Amino acid sequence: MDIDVEREVGSLVDEILGDYQSERKIDRGDTVNQLDKEAIIGIVNKLQQIIFPGYFKNKKYKFYTQKNNLTMLLEDVLYHLNRQMVIVFEHVEEYAGRGRDELEQLAAQKCVAFLRCIPKIRALIETDVQAAYDGDPAAYNTDEIIFSYPGLFAIMVNRIAHELYRLFVPLIPRIMTEYAHGLTGIDIHPGATIGEYFFIDHGTGIVIGETTVIGDNVKVYQGVTLGALSTKGGQKLKSKKRHPTIEDNVTIYSGASILGGETVIGKGAVIGGNAFITASIPAGTRVSIKNQELSMDYIKSGVKEMDIGQDESWFYVI
Amino acid sequence: MDIDVEREVGSLVDEILGDYQSERKIDRGDTVNQLDKEAIIGIVNKLQQIIFPGYFKNKKYKFYTQKNNLTMLLEDVLYHLNRQMVIVFEHVEEYAGRGRDELEQLAAQKCVAFLRCIPKIRALIETDVQAAYDGDPAAYNTDEIIFSYPGLFAIMVNRIAHELYRLFVPLIPRIMTEYAHGLTGIDIHPGATIGEYFFIDHGTGIVIGETTVIGDNVKVYQGVTLGALSTKGGQKLKSKKRHPTIEDNVTIYSGASILGGETVIGKGAVIGGNAFITASIPAGTRVSIKNQELSMDYIKSGVKEMDIGQDESWFYVI
Amino acid sequence: MDIDVEREVGSLVDEILGDYQSERKIDRGDTVNQLDKEAIIGIVNKLQQIIFPGYFKNKKYKFYTQKNNLTMLLEDVLYHLNRQMVIVFEHVEEYAGRGRDELEQLAAQKCVAFLRCIPKIRALIETDVQAAYDGDPAAYNTDEIIFSYPGLFAIMVNRIAHELYRLFVPLIPRIMTEYAHGLTGIDIHPGATIGEYFFIDHGTGIVIGETTVIGDNVKVYQGVTLGALSTKGGQKLKSKKRHPTIEDNVTIYSGASILGGETVIGKGAVIGGNAFITASIPAGTRVSIKNQELSMDYIKSGVKEMDIGQDESWFYVI
Repeated sequence: MDIDVEREVGSLVDEILGDYQSERKIDRGDTVNQLDKEAIIGIVNKLQQIIFPGYFKNKKYKFYTQKNNLTMLLEDVLYHLNRQMVIVFEHVEEYAGRGRDELEQLAAQKCVAFLRCIPKIRALIETDVQAAYDGDPAAYNTDEIIFSYPGLFAIMVNRIAHELYRLFVPLIPRIMTEYAHGLTGIDIHPGATIGEYFFIDHGTGIVIGETTVIGDNVKVYQGVTLGALSTKGGQKLKSKKRHPTIEDNVTIYSGASILGGETVIGKGAVIGGNAFITASIPAGTRVSIKNQELSMDYIKSGVKEMDIGQDESWFYVI
Repeated sequence: MDIDVEREVGSLVDEILGDYQSERKIDRGDTVNQLDKEAIIGIVNKLQQIIFPGYFKNKKYKFYTQKNNLTMLLEDVLYHLNRQMVIVFEHVEEYAGRGRDELEQLAAQKCVAFLRCIPKIRALIETDVQAAYDGDPAAYNTDEIIFSYPGLFAIMVNRIAHELYRLFVPLIPRIMTEYAHGLTGIDIHPGATIGEYFFIDHGTGIVIGETTVIGDNVKVYQGVTLGALSTKGGQKLKSKKRHPTIEDNVTIYSGASILGGETVIGKGAVIGGNAFITASIPAGTRVSIKNQELSMDYIKSGVKEMDIGQDESWFYVI
Repeated sequence: MDIDVEREVGSLVDEILGDYQSERKIDRGDTVNQLDKEAIIGIVNKLQQIIFPGYFKNKKYKFYTQKNNLTMLLEDVLYHLNRQMVIVFEHVEEYAGRGRDELEQLAAQKCVAFLRCIPKIRALIETDVQAAYDGDPAAYNTDEIIFSYPGLFAIMVNRIAHELYRLFVPLIPRIMTEYAHGLTGIDIHPGATIGEYFFIDHGTGIVIGETTVIGDNVKVYQGVTLGALSTKGGQKLKSKKRHPTIEDNVTIYSGASILGGETVIGKGAVIGGNAFITASIPAGTRVSIKNQELSMDYIKSGVKEMDIGQDESWFYVI
């Protein structure tokens, strides 16, 4: 019973085309004019070259002068950002009915407004690099931080995406931060507002929600959630402040969760590892979990390890 | 004492070739006919284009008609999946002795059986997109979910890989889910069975084991483990149900661990953040950690911060 | 008010060039001779082909003989590693004043010394593959581990980077381990010293600090931190032992934190999930969190879910 591949392909095509007619919400039917995620990722990488001049290699073109290199990078970012914005705007309800020319002008305005923020973004990121160097004994120099720290990359992408978010550009900022999330395990929503000297160490598992506000000189370690209390309201909660406010000089150790839109962590507070916080903490307070009770027992020649009872539930693994 | 690079390379080659003769288990010696991980990743990306028609850009070819585009994608997936399957089958003990033609036919049959599942997979994924939209106030529209939500990507790859797993295709489904794990931090084994309307938010750090069974309309947040109790048995435990069953309409908040093959979380239960569960939970129950005890003390002008004693063990960081 | 893009670009270029004159620490101004992260990633991938001969496909060249294939790979690694080392050395203070030739010789010596470690690295990694197979009932065979286990990849990169770290090569080993961190969510500093038969399962969220020492036959699960107590000292703590020592045959379950440079986990100890350890643990001890107190209540037809009070703080999500 050999398979007739040609016939099978024909029948598969018909089946799936039939399924495309069933008006699923996951179908767009546009065969030509799609958003290009790679182009958006390319924009992030070129902005990184602009933000850290002389650090990241341009493998396509070589320039002797910084000005020509910068001009090329800026024109390229502008071209691609404009194109992707127009594609996104064509799917935005409130822009329905506007012609392509009008959308292109709108995109050009937003692009230029965004690019004007680069010096401001660079000034902020310079403080982030310094914060990482000051806060991490494992950092040998700032080059190491710029080349390899995932926390710095995630912050940079948030600072870029946040400006686009403030310009009401849909979708693109989120694609940028999810690109950083994929690379670093650090999930910062473009809506989050973050002050200067921000330091993320290690970072994997960090979640910082859309309406979070973070002051200056804040340190956050791996596995921290700055999240919302219940989301049972779903879409009804949109645009409400759902995530906490973290004031200046706060340190949040690994695994801590701070939840709720009215929760404020006051200036200079220190939140201990794994703490679970749903109410405000006064300035200058150190919060920690009271010492956890540990049970310790001696393993006699491995025998007890086989005898997994109810009270040994800790002894697990996937 | 300048280095003679040419001589050094020769001597290094001899040394390492010598090491290749020591019959290590990590040597295969096949210089031509290897599995191609990039091809397997390419298959996933082309399936994503088939599953969400019109969303993801095809940068190599442009088509005016959906049918020609789909035909191209299907033929390409079929070709590569077939090739990779044959390479894998050649290393499977139970197929030893079968000729290349026979393995190619077997692969072709499994490929076609798999591709026939696409409409079913699409129907499931449509419900997953809806579940994400309904459950997340930060979602502006379903496009954002399809383009950027890592949870949706991980679920899609699980739904694809699970069908290959059910067809007893070795290795390839696991390479697919580990590709998703790498991109998203979400580790779902291809063996896990997942109902419709599944929603993963943020997702980094989630682990869902091989024999997990999940019902419809389940929500899971970052850092959740659906795992096994002790694995001291190692390979002896293979093919036993080691991971929990999650019934319909369950919500599991971030950091919770649910362990054991006989553990059943009943319909509609809600598992609070960081809960550690190793026994079944009745339907309709809400489980939470009793309020943790926090110690709070005031930091006088930073002095106390330097004085790290035994009872201040919370004050740590890597 | 149409935008004159050409003029805008000119003015943006001037603005940003002006910002480049403000002597920020994030500027290098080198337009030609940058470190090439892609080249460093390429080195890791070619070393993977050398370490596991016959497993990973070489898509650029085909060879009939293993020797020619190996020679090509070694020469290529040597060429790129040498170039990247020289670029890094040019920025190292203690090498200031040395000429390019001298730095190239230094790089060549370190490269050859590093490549001589490959048989040793292969011997260690062979034990890691075996440890994963023995420890994981979900592993169907060692091929699956070599092709798809993120933990094995992270260990391999640590073993490579650790040798470069011991040769006092700056920056490059950290870029290698951060590449692995990005792909796997497993953050092992190149400085960490790890014995044979090391097994990481799942792995997302693991952090293993610079001065950690790990014995033979150790198992570590997702979300484990081997970290430091307070880093308030910042750069003053550099080069002190800040991270724990884990002796032979220890198992550390998911989410556990073990902190402090003087903390020693004795031979054969088992550390339960989520345990928070800041003092030494004697050999042969099993440590677990005493059963956490859970509150359970029944949800009447969903009504109570809307009524989120102070004592229901667990009921959260971002």
